[in-house]
Amino acid sequence: MKKRTRLVFSGSGGQGVITAAIILAEAAVIHEGMNATQSQSYGAAARGGSTRSDIILSHNEINYPGVIQPNILICLTQEAYNSFAPIIRPGGTMLTDSRYVKQAKKNDAKQFDLPMYQEVMDQIGKPIVFNICVLGTLVGITGLIKPKSLLAAIKDRVPPDFVEMNTKAFEIGLEMGAEHSMR
Amino acid sequence: MKKRTRLVFSGSGGQGVITAAIILAEAAVIHEGMNATQSQSYGAAARGGSTRSDIILSHNEINYPGVIQPNILICLTQEAYNSFAPIIRPGGTMLTDSRYVKQAKKNDAKQFDLPMYQEVMDQIGKPIVFNICVLGTLVGITGLIKPKSLLAAIKDRVPPDFVEMNTKAFEIGLEMGAEHSMR
Repeated sequence: MKKRTRLVFSGSGGQGVITAAIILAEAAVIHEGMNATQSQSYGAAARGGSTRSDIILSHNEINYPGVIQPNILICLTQEAYNSFAPIIRPGGTMLTDSRYVKQAKKNDAKQFDLPMYQEVMDQIGKPIVFNICVLGTLVGITGLIKPKSLLAAIKDRVPPDFVEMNTKAFEIGLEMGAEHSMR
Repeated sequence: MKKRTRLVFSGSGGQGVITAAIILAEAAVIHEGMNATQSQSYGAAARGGSTRSDIILSHNEINYPGVIQPNILICLTQEAYNSFAPIIRPGGTMLTDSRYVKQAKKNDAKQFDLPMYQEVMDQIGKPIVFNICVLGTLVGITGLIKPKSLLAAIKDRVPPDFVEMNTKAFEIGLEMGAEHSMR
């Protein structure tokens, strides 16, 4: 990946959005030698239940850590989708979960609406790894970073007893995303 | 607290610096109605082992989520101290852990060098809650936000089985900090 990636990852408080964002940034920096910023701006949205985390990945220096127009937008709740869909960059990539979000009529974005939550519940039965499945799907669709870099970052950050479950959730997402690969 | 607080929380990868920063930001936003940003810029420092998280707390809007000159600087490793001590705002507040950091001769800052890690190990025996003890110490020294707001944020984010241990770590820090209160 040569270009700068500006990503917004959004959802509700308990969905692990911030953790997923941190793992993605750490995978890019520690395991692929890139630069990254990862930030949250909290305010009325946090009190209302929406969480938004901004990530920038680049091979060059990054000056400003916030994202104005994401070229990748992930929304895990309808409220987050309603809030943030308008800011996506034209031609950008939108990933939503089909249980939680109903996408509006097509706009100028590549839209992916996939049953990530459902697959996690069917195959693992633990909603706690939903966020990691989303990361897997993102990597499968975009090829943003190597799967093994993300798996290494998961191992760095997740308690040892949970690595296996997180790895499985990641692989479920990776496979689902690969079926819709943009590469 | 009326003024804008610009805080840099630094240390090494495994010390829970980012988690502590997120808990502090969430406490201020969700439980005290403030605005907050919390960000990480990763690059060579992350690969070398230093972690830095920037937090801004304000009653007003916050435009830029990074911190240039912190008025509060926390350093949990010597490497983080050596990197970031030069950026503290004149007259700012510096908090370091006496096991990990040897502060240089006095500079133009209020310097607090406290045995947080040692107290956690003596009283709890689990290094995993060191970061929460540091948060308690910070609140005890500065009165930045109410202890009960921070405890509520800990409960929101920590798994149920670990709330008691985290609460104890917070209280150890709070007491130590209160002995050095700036209020």
